[in-house]
Amino acid sequence: MSRPHIVIVGAGFGGLSAAHSLAGAAADVTVIDRRNYHLFQPLLYQVATAGLSPAQIAQPIRSILRKASNVRVVMGRVTGVDRQRRIVKLEDREIAYDTLVLATGARHAYFGHDEWESVAPALKNIDDATGIRRRILSAFEQAEQTDDPEARRRFLTFVVIGAGPTGVEMAGAIAELAHVALRYDFRAINPRDARIVLVEGGPRVLAAFPPQLSESALRSLKRLHVEVRLGKPVSECDERGVTIDDERLEAATIVWAAGVASSSASKWLGVEKDRVGRVVVGPDLTVPGHPEIFVIGDTAHALGPNGQPLPGLAPVAKQQGAYVARLLRARIAGRTAPGPFRYRDYGAMATIGRRAAVADFGWLKVDGTLAWLLWGMIHITFLIGFRNRFVVLFDWLWSYATFQSGVRLITGPDSH
Amino acid sequence: MSRPHIVIVGAGFGGLSAAHSLAGAAADVTVIDRRNYHLFQPLLYQVATAGLSPAQIAQPIRSILRKASNVRVVMGRVTGVDRQRRIVKLEDREIAYDTLVLATGARHAYFGHDEWESVAPALKNIDDATGIRRRILSAFEQAEQTDDPEARRRFLTFVVIGAGPTGVEMAGAIAELAHVALRYDFRAINPRDARIVLVEGGPRVLAAFPPQLSESALRSLKRLHVEVRLGKPVSECDERGVTIDDERLEAATIVWAAGVASSSASKWLGVEKDRVGRVVVGPDLTVPGHPEIFVIGDTAHALGPNGQPLPGLAPVAKQQGAYVARLLRARIAGRTAPGPFRYRDYGAMATIGRRAAVADFGWLKVDGTLAWLLWGMIHITFLIGFRNRFVVLFDWLWSYATFQSGVRLITGPDSH
Repeated sequence: MSRPHIVIVGAGFGGLSAAHSLAGAAADVTVIDRRNYHLFQPLLYQVATAGLSPAQIAQPIRSILRKASNVRVVMGRVTGVDRQRRIVKLEDREIAYDTLVLATGARHAYFGHDEWESVAPALKNIDDATGIRRRILSAFEQAEQTDDPEARRRFLTFVVIGAGPTGVEMAGAIAELAHVALRYDFRAINPRDARIVLVEGGPRVLAAFPPQLSESALRSLKRLHVEVRLGKPVSECDERGVTIDDERLEAATIVWAAGVASSSASKWLGVEKDRVGRVVVGPDLTVPGHPEIFVIGDTAHALGPNGQPLPGLAPVAKQQGAYVARLLRARIAGRTAPGPFRYRDYGAMATIGRRAAVADFGWLKVDGTLAWLLWGMIHITFLIGFRNRFVVLFDWLWSYATFQSGVRLITGPDSH
Repeated sequence: MSRPHIVIVGAGFGGLSAAHSLAGAAADVTVIDRRNYHLFQPLLYQVATAGLSPAQIAQPIRSILRKASNVRVVMGRVTGVDRQRRIVKLEDREIAYDTLVLATGARHAYFGHDEWESVAPALKNIDDATGIRRRILSAFEQAEQTDDPEARRRFLTFVVIGAGPTGVEMAGAIAELAHVALRYDFRAINPRDARIVLVEGGPRVLAAFPPQLSESALRSLKRLHVEVRLGKPVSECDERGVTIDDERLEAATIVWAAGVASSSASKWLGVEKDRVGRVVVGPDLTVPGHPEIFVIGDTAHALGPNGQPLPGLAPVAKQQGAYVARLLRARIAGRTAPGPFRYRDYGAMATIGRRAAVADFGWLKVDGTLAWLLWGMIHITFLIGFRNRFVVLFDWLWSYATFQSGVRLITGPDSH
């Protein structure tokens, strides 16, 4: 029997974990990604808020997998899957598979208002992050330059929509940028006059956390002078601001951190999907009727022990990737396959700002400085590459000690 | 008498040095730049070749000048100067000056072939650098993906035009990227098959250095398998390659490092300029007939002690900026102005690759490992910001020890 060909689409946490765990297996593995880098998404908001450089949280996929000689990396955009012919279609060619692992992640959904995307960008990749950084920093520059008090107010108003971890972390980071790092940089404006508004349709921030931690996060946000609007849906987004319920907020910078929707995988496959577009998979993460197709990570609708779909978190994706690799190794060796996938929940955390974070380990709930230190340690630990761990740690210590943030560059198309 | 208003256009080495030296003077100073950052241009080629992150060689202008309370920073694009009304025109408003310092740097000239710019980009700012990085890294990706040997050869051919310091450093860095850092990353291609061609119209590389150092640099380039074509003008540049003399080179990546031309300052002023567009200034760096207008750095045609125009180097610009500040402080205080500007030449250096560089201090000419160490030490010393010094040093030591380069990210418009 010839070596089977396993094709993994997406080199996020799920795809990379699968590829890693298949290194040295008796199979040829091809990893396809649109980008040449794996991104440590939990820290992407720090790129958007000028705290870290892109390269500190991104690593070339090839470089991560260089020692896995049975793994090949292809940079390309997948446009479809032919289940019958077992072929992945790319823009310019086709790649045949014996086993397919789809780990294409999720995109932000605009609740049917796709036209909002251009005025309220979301944060998914490095170009998004440097784009949002450009908007935030340019807003301060423009506020400094205008003589019109109304325009100045608009430039100094920042609205973040969605109070999940990304939204809370963004709002906190923008507040610290304005109140701490930029404090002495301007002459005509006081960056501390900046108004940061965090808008959430639901009744509390960090809804996935226990209520007591939501309360703690809310207090930390208020201490940073972030205005939090709870239970208010956004009814309009345009170039000049947002309408929340019936309140109008004139704002030059709007960041979208709400409504996650899955990527195109379910469309490629033409199989059953859930309300947010995730592919419904069985207990072994295969697509029903297709033991050769796995879907993992944010792209998958897999049930947890409580009968609820598993959340779109990095640990879920990683564990699923490792599980699929274990299952495939067993199949190749003709051994009994492992039982159904079981997610081991080690907890969740979110940070709000200097010495403010929340962490929920199930048996232990912490907030404040301790949670913040834990948050930092755990994120450093999971960064790929010793070099990145070192430089991120250095930058964090540096910012903590100097109250400065290191990457306040306005780059990209609008900066000319 | 009210405080005079000094307007400095450009926050490169010249403008920033003038602004720095005017901190605390009895004058209001406004620094205008199109970008929000000061760039340490001598290391920009390392951003283009994936060695350093943009933020490691760029610093927000505001942040550099935050403690100079008489200095204001304006981010904006200058479109003209009205000498009669003493006004600098920006895109959206005007700023009046009593004294004007133009330090707007230089652009690359395409010898009347401006259409070559899109296929053979030059290296002037961070967006250029990340764009060139994208081209170089994408070429390897495309070479890995194609099955056509001719296309593969084209993707693996890199042409650098111009063998001044930037061209030599670029060619050396691309060669090291291909032969060292990327060595184990690909499966279908061997990055060591990459062909790097350095094209120079003149008779030797690093023409501004003594011939013995040019020879040394040439040997170092050959050791890195860089093909050097001397005395050959480029007659054609297009998307598929270049024509040198009557040799056709099919190449997917072309980098322009030739022909410096000055920026628009002479057009704004409508005064005498030299062959490459620099404004001709007197011994005190003022425009003849305009004691209130100074032109410094790459934008100025100022004569050196040998009757030759001073070269477009960072130390010249820095010393000129400091000189102008000294002169203006004397004027404001009613003291005798300093004598004519005198450039103190401490030497010049260029690096080719690992343990290969040349340095000319006049009384001492060195090459090899010693020049390379000196080059590194001096460039670290002149970087602005302790944080940058530390992280660049760390990255260099890391790359040296691991043979890796840290910033191999394909970002920007073409990466989607």
